[in-house]
Amino acid sequence: MRLALLIEYDGTCFSGWQAQRGSRTVQGVLEESASRLCSHEVRITGSGRTDSGVHALGQVAHLDVEEDESGRISTGLPGILPTDVAILETARAPEGFHSRFSAISRAYRYRIIRGKHPLLSRFAFQLPYRDLDTGAMERAARLCLGRHDWRGMAREGSSNRTWLVDVRHASVVEDGEGWILDIRADRFLRGMVRLWAGALVDVGRGRMTPEAVGDILATGDRAAAGPSLPPQGLALTGVEYPWRIFSTDAI
Amino acid sequence: MRLALLIEYDGTCFSGWQAQRGSRTVQGVLEESASRLCSHEVRITGSGRTDSGVHALGQVAHLDVEEDESGRISTGLPGILPTDVAILETARAPEGFHSRFSAISRAYRYRIIRGKHPLLSRFAFQLPYRDLDTGAMERAARLCLGRHDWRGMAREGSSNRTWLVDVRHASVVEDGEGWILDIRADRFLRGMVRLWAGALVDVGRGRMTPEAVGDILATGDRAAAGPSLPPQGLALTGVEYPWRIFSTDAI
Repeated sequence: MRLALLIEYDGTCFSGWQAQRGSRTVQGVLEESASRLCSHEVRITGSGRTDSGVHALGQVAHLDVEEDESGRISTGLPGILPTDVAILETARAPEGFHSRFSAISRAYRYRIIRGKHPLLSRFAFQLPYRDLDTGAMERAARLCLGRHDWRGMAREGSSNRTWLVDVRHASVVEDGEGWILDIRADRFLRGMVRLWAGALVDVGRGRMTPEAVGDILATGDRAAAGPSLPPQGLALTGVEYPWRIFSTDAI
Repeated sequence: MRLALLIEYDGTCFSGWQAQRGSRTVQGVLEESASRLCSHEVRITGSGRTDSGVHALGQVAHLDVEEDESGRISTGLPGILPTDVAILETARAPEGFHSRFSAISRAYRYRIIRGKHPLLSRFAFQLPYRDLDTGAMERAARLCLGRHDWRGMAREGSSNRTWLVDVRHASVVEDGEGWILDIRADRFLRGMVRLWAGALVDVGRGRMTPEAVGDILATGDRAAAGPSLPPQGLALTGVEYPWRIFSTDAI
């Protein structure tokens, strides 16, 4: 039977999601723990990779286990994981479910803080500039909505057949500590959110117009894009599926 | 001249506030950095100690420097501190100011989370029980308001002449992740907030009535109090003075 897992992690001490020999990764820690519980090798498939240092509030993964092992996973696995990764929920996966291929959309959040905040620094990028123009950033974010070719704001992927991305939500909110950039799309290309956040910061600083961000999507000119922002500000906030899989509606 | 500092720190990797030979402490790191900047020994006095592992969002301290050194401290010191401690503001202290003796009240927050949350675990206590009765905890918190003898909910201090504490605010708020316990008082005794939070959790679990918390204050019976909760859930949120010292009203 197939189980779906809702996973949260602090990416600071992980070399990303994907299992790699010799590195501490989220997938690696989960597979090792599940294999230990079941006394045989267990493979866990995530909705997508996250880079080294990137966090997740609502990563989704699936694994196949024998009927009599499912209790061991749902009650045993959460208890043996290290403090920086947690299973928030375990559910029996709907018929035909695949954490990656069934996903309709994924959502990411990029957190920028003004000034140094030791209690937020693991989970945010500290802006080295005085201020940002939130209105201009909002306009730039709106220009990214819809279906566009994102080759101008992504890194070369290993197996990209297309650069087309359908962005369903993109927003910039200013709060007491800084800015929260949210983006939801059917798929994400390598490095895309951090390059998008970098472009928005350039817009906020007045180094680029909001329209120039639209132009990068129209022309695919990677040279026109701003710098990529560091991983600690980024978190995968949730993955959407055609079914309601978890009882929570947090994602 | 005397300068006042508003300080934030992640207490995880500090052996508390107070300088101790051979331990990494907040006061130690600040004094060492300020001394390096001024090329002579600089002493920094905090509003009060925080225990090992306890955080601060609004610790206040003062130091005395020569007129021509004040710029070096206000602009130079924030830039040379490690990532887990920050100076949020530097101000010229009002006449007669002393970070500890001028304080009118101090405020602490204890954060309890339901279930495991890797992104909060450095800054909260993870409740090992299913649920708490928020209403009962609120009633217990209200019984702590006003002037009471807190010997029943404090550890033996080194130089306590009196156990009297005037609690001006005490509240329990339930949010999406768990509970936030806030307490503000003219002074705090050793271990007081963590024992208070432990008593409130015992009330929330139904192991003690709200009135029993009032009884501990009336009788001073330490044996009747619950367990102390761990330090990572605790943060010094602010210190109040008769003057407005910092431009922020965050504390």
